[in-house]
Amino acid sequence: MQTTIKVSGMTCGHCTAAVTKALENVPGVEKAEVSLEPGQAVVTGSADQAAMLAAIKEEGYEAELS
Amino acid sequence: MQTTIKVSGMTCGHCTAAVTKALENVPGVEKAEVSLEPGQAVVTGSADQAAMLAAIKEEGYEAELS
Repeated sequence: MQTTIKVSGMTCGHCTAAVTKALENVPGVEKAEVSLEPGQAVVTGSADQAAMLAAIKEEGYEAELS
Repeated sequence: MQTTIKVSGMTCGHCTAAVTKALENVPGVEKAEVSLEPGQAVVTGSADQAAMLAAIKEEGYEAELS
């Protein structure tokens, strides 16, 4: 299962790395591919959507299902 | 001794953290205070200036003595 999340506020490769790591720590996430342009995360796995959004927000970015 | 270095290309707190860490790994650096606005590093210690500039550039940013 693949979920695409719109992520706002990332400005550099450190940001995408931080979001990737945060998502990959959410139970059920198998892989997270995060890009700056467009600002999004494509997550593979069967994780709780609210948990994924919360993990991104905890890093300081805005997140919403796209 | 304090050295101020102009750093360009930092966009977020992760960037300042990366530059701070890189500078603090240069022999002779006691403390590095890095800010986004203005983009600069104020380094305390008696480190080689070329080594400090190189450490910043290795992280992907432009650096010059100000």
